[in-house]
Amino acid sequence: MRDPAQTVMRRIEALARISDEPGRLTRTFCSPAMRKANKLVGSWMRQAGMKVRQDAIGNLIGHYPARDQKSSQLFLLGSHLDTVRDAGKFDGPLGVLIAIACVQRLFEKKTRLPFAIEIIGFSDEEGVRYQSAYLGSKVLAGTFSRKALTRTDANGVTMAQAIRSFGGNPDGLAAARLDPKRLLGYAEVHIEQGPVLEQKRLSVGVVTAIAGQTRLQLTFTGRAGHAGTTPMHLRRDALCAAAEFVLAAESLAKNRTGLVATVGEITALPGASNVIPGHVRLSLDVRHPKDAVRQAAVAELKKRATAIAAKRNVGLDWQPVHQTRAVTCDRHLSSLLSKAVKHRQRKLVLLHSGAGHDAAAMADTTPVTMLFVRCKNGISHHPDESASVKDVRIAISVMNDFIRLLN
Amino acid sequence: MRDPAQTVMRRIEALARISDEPGRLTRTFCSPAMRKANKLVGSWMRQAGMKVRQDAIGNLIGHYPARDQKSSQLFLLGSHLDTVRDAGKFDGPLGVLIAIACVQRLFEKKTRLPFAIEIIGFSDEEGVRYQSAYLGSKVLAGTFSRKALTRTDANGVTMAQAIRSFGGNPDGLAAARLDPKRLLGYAEVHIEQGPVLEQKRLSVGVVTAIAGQTRLQLTFTGRAGHAGTTPMHLRRDALCAAAEFVLAAESLAKNRTGLVATVGEITALPGASNVIPGHVRLSLDVRHPKDAVRQAAVAELKKRATAIAAKRNVGLDWQPVHQTRAVTCDRHLSSLLSKAVKHRQRKLVLLHSGAGHDAAAMADTTPVTMLFVRCKNGISHHPDESASVKDVRIAISVMNDFIRLLN
Repeated sequence: MRDPAQTVMRRIEALARISDEPGRLTRTFCSPAMRKANKLVGSWMRQAGMKVRQDAIGNLIGHYPARDQKSSQLFLLGSHLDTVRDAGKFDGPLGVLIAIACVQRLFEKKTRLPFAIEIIGFSDEEGVRYQSAYLGSKVLAGTFSRKALTRTDANGVTMAQAIRSFGGNPDGLAAARLDPKRLLGYAEVHIEQGPVLEQKRLSVGVVTAIAGQTRLQLTFTGRAGHAGTTPMHLRRDALCAAAEFVLAAESLAKNRTGLVATVGEITALPGASNVIPGHVRLSLDVRHPKDAVRQAAVAELKKRATAIAAKRNVGLDWQPVHQTRAVTCDRHLSSLLSKAVKHRQRKLVLLHSGAGHDAAAMADTTPVTMLFVRCKNGISHHPDESASVKDVRIAISVMNDFIRLLN
Repeated sequence: MRDPAQTVMRRIEALARISDEPGRLTRTFCSPAMRKANKLVGSWMRQAGMKVRQDAIGNLIGHYPARDQKSSQLFLLGSHLDTVRDAGKFDGPLGVLIAIACVQRLFEKKTRLPFAIEIIGFSDEEGVRYQSAYLGSKVLAGTFSRKALTRTDANGVTMAQAIRSFGGNPDGLAAARLDPKRLLGYAEVHIEQGPVLEQKRLSVGVVTAIAGQTRLQLTFTGRAGHAGTTPMHLRRDALCAAAEFVLAAESLAKNRTGLVATVGEITALPGASNVIPGHVRLSLDVRHPKDAVRQAAVAELKKRATAIAAKRNVGLDWQPVHQTRAVTCDRHLSSLLSKAVKHRQRKLVLLHSGAGHDAAAMADTTPVTMLFVRCKNGISHHPDESASVKDVRIAISVMNDFIRLLN
């Protein structure tokens, strides 16, 4: 009998070759690569006895019928098939492929459950093309906002056009929502994307919560000037203000357990070696599994930014860009998952996810749970992203057990 | 009789309309706009009784003969006719046009001097097109390096091609050097490009030295990582290291009189709001009128950067890009200029130039002096750059007196 873990690893490699960019893995929402990926993954779903469809936003959905054809109850498994730019191979596809391995096993054993299983390969989780994440899961959860359809990508293509040319239907997004009354829950397997499991030398861990996130854009506005002729005491250097803020954010986060704060983007204008920066724009990303802690941290950072700007006589523009609430995983589903983990691994570790996941969006419509798989050096969003076949094998076993426990 | 200051202001406006880019003033080395500017300024030189030529690097040179035709002695006046991108109108042209106004006056009064005067409109001071400044003055001073001829501009045009198609001669650059034995000195009028004269409420000031400059490129290399999943204590954030360095440079410069240190460019990679920066590249520009002070400051900053990198376990690459020595203005010429200033302005102020000037390159071959003209809000390299007609009038009078004192 074939080793399902090896199959998953082979499929991971096959998907990694489907990219929008030569020489590196980039697969964005409704792109030609995404079309190919959906086709390939759809063929694997069919091999696992599933009926396959693509919904109005381009989600790939495989349906494995319930024992009783009249039952309308659904349990959902899945993750996303899009990637960041120059991505790793595991972030997203691993969850879809492990789910397919589990259903394949049911199919081979001719096992039907009292409910149908649907596996979803979400069409957009990373938000690369339209800077708007969870498009796929938001449509299924009924939280998608039609306003997003007018967003344009880097080539000026609106989201509505992109969906249409992919074969989706921008006018059918509301109807594509899954009826919450039919839903029993959603379980997602994902690489951890962090170093905790590796540090604890464990293959898998159960996620108790997904951190809430605040994303902001800050601009400090000082005064550009000649780098040679403007004495230090007459400067209003926007980059020095920004540098103080970067360190303030780091220091605050270091002093609050579980808090992370990151400045990932910075642009200094005019941006010449001999000109004092007059404008500096930076991104700020703050996350914590408790909303109150995150909100207090953001408020504190705003205070610090304001104080830095005032002291330096520079302007500050503070723009919240995006906010997601923390999501608590469902107690019942997580206890079943924990039971399965304890069966396969000497030790159960509960951890929170600092990264957002489709599960966070799905939590708006159904109970969710998540299983994290150890990843090498905690690296993700990078070609070096890696998970071992041994850990994948354990994750598959855990999910097989979990599905049995659902029964 | 016409007001020469008004004439200069009108000519400033006329030159400001000669640009390589629509809607803003950009006039780069050997460009079509430079050709038009040379033609127009050449016509004004001729009106002032000068014989006009264009040399092998595209410098525009007007010759006003000595009283005794057999005298080969030359006194040089001038500045540059090229500009930065989206430039102000005064930086460069002001010095050329005031020089023409002075010679015009000699011509109208039928005055000849014991030496010839040559006015030079340098073809490149800003170095925009080939990232290599002082091309014009280096050729005249005999310090031009032929290696520069193979540099290419943004369109792949080599410097040699650019010179040739401008009507210059890349093979004649060595011969275009001015014979140092003929040279009595070089005097340049320039806007201050800084706030000192404005603060002191003075029209003009005498430059005692031109600051030396060290330009460096630094790269901090940490480890990129997911902004949500990498706990603060496991990060090696290259931007936090860079931020510490930006503040260290600012703080050092604030504590050394006359020192300026500027980080004008910063790039954080990969540059996404949800990714910890793994690489940060920044420019550093350090200037001081004394070489020893500047060199000590650069050494100290390297020590601080190294310490920051070590503490944070990130890599540091420290690359000197460009270095110019400080230039001391000639004591005798500056005393004559000071005498002229004292005659026209209640107070003499001596200041150093933080910006580089053609005078710095010309100092390699002849004694130099410089007169600074107040500029509004200390702004330069910007369309808001401005000098008043009153200050221009005083500068013309000072230079007229200076030329008489040379006699």
